Amino acid sequence: MPITFADPAAFTHAQLEEGTDFAPKFDAAGLVTVVTVEAGSNEVLMLAHMNAQALALTLETGIAHYWSRSRRALWKKGESSGEIQEVVELRTDCDQDAMVLVVRQTGRGAACHTGRKSCFYRRAVVAGNQVQLQDTGLPRLFDPAQIYKGH
Amino acid sequence: MPITFADPAAFTHAQLEEGTDFAPKFDAAGLVTVVTVEAGSNEVLMLAHMNAQALALTLETGIAHYWSRSRRALWKKGESSGEIQEVVELRTDCDQDAMVLVVRQTGRGAACHTGRKSCFYRRAVVAGNQVQLQDTGLPRLFDPAQIYKGH
Repeated sequence: MPITFADPAAFTHAQLEEGTDFAPKFDAAGLVTVVTVEAGSNEVLMLAHMNAQALALTLETGIAHYWSRSRRALWKKGESSGEIQEVVELRTDCDQDAMVLVVRQTGRGAACHTGRKSCFYRRAVVAGNQVQLQDTGLPRLFDPAQIYKGH
Repeated sequence: MPITFADPAAFTHAQLEEGTDFAPKFDAAGLVTVVTVEAGSNEVLMLAHMNAQALALTLETGIAHYWSRSRRALWKKGESSGEIQEVVELRTDCDQDAMVLVVRQTGRGAACHTGRKSCFYRRAVVAGNQVQLQDTGLPRLFDPAQIYKGH
């Protein structure tokens, strides 16, 4: 039987923040925001979104599923690239509209479609009233032109 | 002179993903999503949003500023609670619509308004087709009833 979620409207603010009922607060588009981090290092790999179906599939299968806002489709992470994410733990925040998904990144270890471990491979550096980006030095673990050809 | 940001519409997809121009992609509400992590441990402390003003102030002052969606107001984190966040680094993701803000959490070390270090203090545990939340054991570092009285 598929996983179902409680409706946050059925709970008080205090129950949502301190209780044991999981009642994810999906936004007007039906999504929660998910921060995916690497088990052990805590390194932030990516930021993505889940609808109720993706959240249920993630919990049922132990494999990360998201909702692709650009493709407007369920997205089993790694289906094209082989970079599957195995779920270690899912945490929710105080008001239950955001999640931290702790994963083991399989494949070549690249969560980002650019081939890097993490999507957050550039830092902002202020110079006067302008801001430039500087590469933090994450290597490319695959060539996206090879992996996504035909997509 | 205040910091200004480049317009992402002025760049190609490849320039946004691989270039050195910081051109944050604010959503229809004028916001980017920000994951705030603790320097050193990488622990995710909170998830919040910034508008252009909050992002500029954060970079100019080195102190985390957000946009409070519930109060619809600029929010200098810690102004009420004393839990100021000192910026170590700001990173952007591939398409520049999400940021990781690396901080030193001052005060009592509680980023969450519930008095805990992190907002992500509960994990989801599946039992059949239901999901329950389990406390991960983060202690309360302040009593929110004392800190936010009058708010």
